[in-house]
Amino acid sequence: MNRIIFATQNQHKVKEISSILHPGINSVSLADLGFLEELLETGSTLTENAIQKAEQVWDSFKLPCISEDTGLFVKALNGAPGVFTARFAQRENSSLSNNDLLLEKLLDHNDRSAYFETCICYKDTAQTKLFYGRLDGTISIGAKGLQGFGYDPIFIPDTYIQTLAEIDLDKKSEMSHRSLAFKSFEKWFLAQFF
Amino acid sequence: MNRIIFATQNQHKVKEISSILHPGINSVSLADLGFLEELLETGSTLTENAIQKAEQVWDSFKLPCISEDTGLFVKALNGAPGVFTARFAQRENSSLSNNDLLLEKLLDHNDRSAYFETCICYKDTAQTKLFYGRLDGTISIGAKGLQGFGYDPIFIPDTYIQTLAEIDLDKKSEMSHRSLAFKSFEKWFLAQFF
Repeated sequence: MNRIIFATQNQHKVKEISSILHPGINSVSLADLGFLEELLETGSTLTENAIQKAEQVWDSFKLPCISEDTGLFVKALNGAPGVFTARFAQRENSSLSNNDLLLEKLLDHNDRSAYFETCICYKDTAQTKLFYGRLDGTISIGAKGLQGFGYDPIFIPDTYIQTLAEIDLDKKSEMSHRSLAFKSFEKWFLAQFF
Repeated sequence: MNRIIFATQNQHKVKEISSILHPGINSVSLADLGFLEELLETGSTLTENAIQKAEQVWDSFKLPCISEDTGLFVKALNGAPGVFTARFAQRENSSLSNNDLLLEKLLDHNDRSAYFETCICYKDTAQTKLFYGRLDGTISIGAKGLQGFGYDPIFIPDTYIQTLAEIDLDKKSEMSHRSLAFKSFEKWFLAQFF
């Protein structure tokens, strides 16, 4: 059994990932290890943030670890919120929620196309590997659905009519940006170490 | 004066870079430091290789360092030689030079479009930053010119009729993939530390 630390303090991500990863990969969350500090993410791209998070965990534990960073990139907003996806409203000094702020900003735009992207960084003593997953879609007119988290209630994947928050986790796990990135990591990892 | 280790054993790159970088950035090569080992580059992308090289130097010196990885991506060859650019002929067990092998492989292709890409990785104690530069062009019919190194004699940048090896270093420095990546790094670095 290969133990990997999953470098996130976000319990939603821990839950989503544990339903995706191969049972031979034992992913341990930071909370499980009693590591409760906030991880810094001051990079200007998903890749830099993912590397930065993996390095902080590596520096603490010297154990193989994976981190992820995810952004929502909206075409009409020149790629915003992008690397600031989790801190969108806060960064804009808005009292709205992230989702409401995004809906408001898109009121005057016809082009509502957007994509989610996830970057995963795996780090061990010998290497730093990067994996990516992307999900294209559009921003809905209003929020719908109760599953998932973050922007899921306002994101409609291409070829769907529901938002991600209306799609079952099993189905979401087949096609989401995060799943695709983790499957790409998993494929590489299993080929390396099993 | 900020000292940065330039993580390369390639003296061509050292020379090209020292002509590009701001005089306030004191770049020290590995050879200057008596570090003569070959750096491992076993990643599957330019980014992974650049990170890997910066990490090896960081582990040895714990000083801010930059590394670079450059690839030539040829459309008709599905992106080859790509991450294997420096080891193309060796990897294909060919007795030809890299350039002759590439010309041979393109004999039957009309589409000779290609691009160079450089990824630079800067690493210090707090962060890992990535910078990119790209130069589009075509692979020439035969080798021409004596300047530069590597694939320069068979690469014609878009809007030029000469190969990179026929273009003066000053002019090459204005538009090359490597220059663009270093200028992007330099801009960020100067804003951070000066």
